[in-house]
Amino acid sequence: MSTKQWNDVVDSRDVQRSKKRKAVVEAGARLFNENGFEKTSLDDLAKSLGITKRTIYYYVQSKDEILMEAIRQSMWFLEKMVGVAESKPRSAVEKIEIVIEEYAKWITTDFGACLVLTRENLLTDDVQLELRSRKNRLDWLVRDAIIEGIRSGEIREGCDPRLTSAAIFGALNWVPFWNRSAKITPASEIATNFKLTFVQGLLN
Amino acid sequence: MSTKQWNDVVDSRDVQRSKKRKAVVEAGARLFNENGFEKTSLDDLAKSLGITKRTIYYYVQSKDEILMEAIRQSMWFLEKMVGVAESKPRSAVEKIEIVIEEYAKWITTDFGACLVLTRENLLTDDVQLELRSRKNRLDWLVRDAIIEGIRSGEIREGCDPRLTSAAIFGALNWVPFWNRSAKITPASEIATNFKLTFVQGLLN
Repeated sequence: MSTKQWNDVVDSRDVQRSKKRKAVVEAGARLFNENGFEKTSLDDLAKSLGITKRTIYYYVQSKDEILMEAIRQSMWFLEKMVGVAESKPRSAVEKIEIVIEEYAKWITTDFGACLVLTRENLLTDDVQLELRSRKNRLDWLVRDAIIEGIRSGEIREGCDPRLTSAAIFGALNWVPFWNRSAKITPASEIATNFKLTFVQGLLN
Repeated sequence: MSTKQWNDVVDSRDVQRSKKRKAVVEAGARLFNENGFEKTSLDDLAKSLGITKRTIYYYVQSKDEILMEAIRQSMWFLEKMVGVAESKPRSAVEKIEIVIEEYAKWITTDFGACLVLTRENLLTDDVQLELRSRKNRLDWLVRDAIIEGIRSGEIREGCDPRLTSAAIFGALNWVPFWNRSAKITPASEIATNFKLTFVQGLLN
């Protein structure tokens, strides 16, 4: 017999539970981003969701679990992104443009912002190591594209792969520090401008 | 009668005191940068200087005082920098290059890193406001230079002043997040490469 009732006009218990857990983690990430991990309490979180702290414990065990889950989401994303940028043979500059576009989309979400606003020493050693390896892979994707582009003549000689990649990710990672409050700049606008800035530079 | 003794072969008491206070503040900024403000105790600080916590209280009253002093140093620097970049009539691009150079120098010091690694909500409202206004002045110096450069034909049309300035300061502000551990990249090398990246772009 099927476990479906009511022809799915409402979500199953499992789906509801998973949606609620996601809401807890997302609200947690948002509060950490706004006030810092240390200054956020589960009481604040419960209040922001209009539920009791006791209810929160039904979905997560601790603040740390929320942080880990948010970081895990970011790691999945980083992994996916590398896949997207490598999926087709593309020109070096196009590859870098895709990274800027995709990363801008992520960094403007609460989970993405949490990735850069969280001090590494709040994470367990395992997670720190895994996170660093995912970030390194993405960093090397950009560095390799630059090396490849210089070789093919698409990118100018003397462009330093390591420091150029650091400049690109710096510009992107800094977005959550200024893109908040009332007037949020959409990811697409940031990406369009950053692509022009890094590809064409300032000169006419 | 002069207060000088020993022909100044040793510093006066006042100078010694001021040097020691500076050492306390610098060591504090370094520890905040490494481990976070919340996770740093005055005990850690005393240990790092090889003195007792009681001695520290002779120079500063609290961790907060150290943080405020470090931030105050950064504000002086931001003020000075605006003066340097505006001191002579220069081309728009040259002005931006000077900002990149000077800011790279600052951001690679412990005080400079403290400016970007400190969460704003750790500062008093007054200091937050003052800091924001100094940062805004520098931001507008770059934005104005871009507007001026577009008008004179030096900078390409369609270069967005706000987002380009955000990209430049993002790249620079992110430096303390990666430029640590054993192999430090000197400020001059970062500045040379960032100037090329932002002025010339990637294309050949």
